[in-house]
Amino acid sequence: MLGGQMLAQQSCGKCFGLSTRTAPPAFRSARSRGFIAGASNTSASVVALYSAKLGKCWLVGAGPGPADYLTMKAVRLLQTADVVVYDDLGSQDALGFLSPATELVYVGKRGGRESITQPQINELLVARCAEGRNVVRLKGGCPSVFSRLASEVAALRAAGIPYELVPGVSSALAAPLFAGFPLTHVTLSPSFTVLSGHDPDSIDWGALARLPTLVLLMAGRGLGEIATRLQDTGWPTDTPVVVIRAAGLSQQQVWYSRLDRVKTDTANVESLSPCVVVIGRVAEFTDG
Amino acid sequence: MLGGQMLAQQSCGKCFGLSTRTAPPAFRSARSRGFIAGASNTSASVVALYSAKLGKCWLVGAGPGPADYLTMKAVRLLQTADVVVYDDLGSQDALGFLSPATELVYVGKRGGRESITQPQINELLVARCAEGRNVVRLKGGCPSVFSRLASEVAALRAAGIPYELVPGVSSALAAPLFAGFPLTHVTLSPSFTVLSGHDPDSIDWGALARLPTLVLLMAGRGLGEIATRLQDTGWPTDTPVVVIRAAGLSQQQVWYSRLDRVKTDTANVESLSPCVVVIGRVAEFTDG
Repeated sequence: MLGGQMLAQQSCGKCFGLSTRTAPPAFRSARSRGFIAGASNTSASVVALYSAKLGKCWLVGAGPGPADYLTMKAVRLLQTADVVVYDDLGSQDALGFLSPATELVYVGKRGGRESITQPQINELLVARCAEGRNVVRLKGGCPSVFSRLASEVAALRAAGIPYELVPGVSSALAAPLFAGFPLTHVTLSPSFTVLSGHDPDSIDWGALARLPTLVLLMAGRGLGEIATRLQDTGWPTDTPVVVIRAAGLSQQQVWYSRLDRVKTDTANVESLSPCVVVIGRVAEFTDG
Repeated sequence: MLGGQMLAQQSCGKCFGLSTRTAPPAFRSARSRGFIAGASNTSASVVALYSAKLGKCWLVGAGPGPADYLTMKAVRLLQTADVVVYDDLGSQDALGFLSPATELVYVGKRGGRESITQPQINELLVARCAEGRNVVRLKGGCPSVFSRLASEVAALRAAGIPYELVPGVSSALAAPLFAGFPLTHVTLSPSFTVLSGHDPDSIDWGALARLPTLVLLMAGRGLGEIATRLQDTGWPTDTPVVVIRAAGLSQQQVWYSRLDRVKTDTANVESLSPCVVVIGRVAEFTDG
């Protein structure tokens, strides 16, 4: 067994038992350190104050949630970070690798908590690095996919903070495997397209009309609308649709449906979030 | 540091020093055990011979190559496998985690070695599991993407062998991060499409005409042809093209070009293989 895994099992409970670190919520913890002094406190001025020794920021993918799907590099970075700034993750497993001295800052938006704006997150990353501290910015899945990476990287660049992008296992690719099929297949799926389904009105459906396989993230609420739009652009009504909720977690649920039935098939489901939706013939390969 | 990483550093050299395991080539090693007895030796009959205690087959993604991007689960499975059947990988790092008792079978196709057919690989997986041995089928990147997974899974299913699909870090998503940019961006790239570029004639270029971002694997040789086809379907000639060779490895190389220049910009490169090619405005986000 890996040393890191043992640490996770031993310290998960302990970590969350340290109420002084995790409650009050992370944003308040950040605020209490005074780094958000107002709009005039720009990245450049923060860096000027602390520039003697800059820390580094790693923007790291945490994978779908379970510690099993963390990379070796993510684990090592978490074990040695001075500060971890984290979003809503599939699970809290990754946080079990932190040392007790690590500052833990939650900046997610789930569950109606006090929210922090993206500019404030950017300032937080810059400020901590400017203090000479090494920061892990932990994101669910892979930072390459719908992670709001660009804004944070632009802020780090503008402030002259060294940073590194660290890929992770994306749920977009992992969820189909958990449901029993790959995204590509020599005849059924020569390509796949990953997109966000959170706002069906913003999508150019015509551009997707002749593609073999779609992978939609954040599509739970709009699923009926999405199915209608695709059928309107010529997708066959019997195209398989697989909905994977909480991919890779113990509470994972999978629905195997088709375009003309997915709305009714999921009508009585209380919440489909977070989910990955795969639409295309490749899903016929499953034995689910 | 993780125990697993220490093991990798200690045993990498030792592992490959065991010439009885890695040379002769793996296919011959498999042949010498007599499992490929001819076309009549079907999966079903092999299983019938050994069905007292079946092993399990894990089809596992090894990521882009460095041990850093292996998942914790991949490392644990490699450490405990009875047999590892592996393709061409980005590096040999993953094999450093094996115990000396693990049977190591190379079934890749690089470098003009004696080749093994896909049906033979399928038979090998079934035969080893039918002997009661636990098999890791290790694939570069993520098994969800161009991994010939379907054929192997179909064979395992037909033979009644238990199996599990284990996602990894895909180079398709990781390579852009190594080159400095993500695949999605709120305005520049609301979606991305992953496809193989190994046979430009087989691609429905019209279906890709209005997409924002393409990620091409196996596109090194056809890059000039691909750039021409895309411009023919309306992609702007100044669309950024980024070619990432040997993504994540110490020998990684990156070319930043555009559709109308990429053929000449890479004309003097001896080999672009293996490479990931990203085409789209999202690549403007890089500071490379």
